Amino acid sequence: MFVYAKDRPVEDLGGGVTRKVLAHDGGLMQVEVAFEEGAVGALHSHPHEQLTYVLSGEFEFTIGEETRVVRAGDTLYKKSGVMHGCRCLKPGVLLDTFTPQRLDYLQK
Amino acid sequence: MFVYAKDRPVEDLGGGVTRKVLAHDGGLMQVEVAFEEGAVGALHSHPHEQLTYVLSGEFEFTIGEETRVVRAGDTLYKKSGVMHGCRCLKPGVLLDTFTPQRLDYLQK
Repeated sequence: MFVYAKDRPVEDLGGGVTRKVLAHDGGLMQVEVAFEEGAVGALHSHPHEQLTYVLSGEFEFTIGEETRVVRAGDTLYKKSGVMHGCRCLKPGVLLDTFTPQRLDYLQK
Repeated sequence: MFVYAKDRPVEDLGGGVTRKVLAHDGGLMQVEVAFEEGAVGALHSHPHEQLTYVLSGEFEFTIGEETRVVRAGDTLYKKSGVMHGCRCLKPGVLLDTFTPQRLDYLQK
């Protein structure tokens, strides 16, 4: 139930993006995703509902037909199946939360 | 789908605790809860599953029978119905995420 930041491995996803899976269970999963400037989260969709909280940096985000710039403390709701993606304008970290958890993130 | 930090009102809950409800919809709700030193989140439980991400500060957290100290980047998973509460050791902010959303937080 307690998951310490220092105990979680960082995965290099390539292209200036790294990921750290935090606490997770059936209903919820939280993941830090760190971006270098210019790094891209390609447009994609999934059945999981997702909340993104901007921990730091600056990002241009597209959700569905809408594109906007977001910064620390801003939150983004992505409903099931909606297309979304981002481009990092200033280096930073996003905190993604999924329901249900992303089982594909747990496969080795 | 885009919720800006600057647009969200801060609610004073008393006892050195304030709350800011961020993006939310049926499946997920995110909420910042700021604590002054010594402020307490009394032990309680609810059917919603909950993830807490420590944004800043230092907190002594109890979940079920376990009590531990957590800091920025640590995450806490609270399953449905489990008793949990905290005491703030150093001023800071928690980011709580619920599934489903807390409809009681939306009542005026």
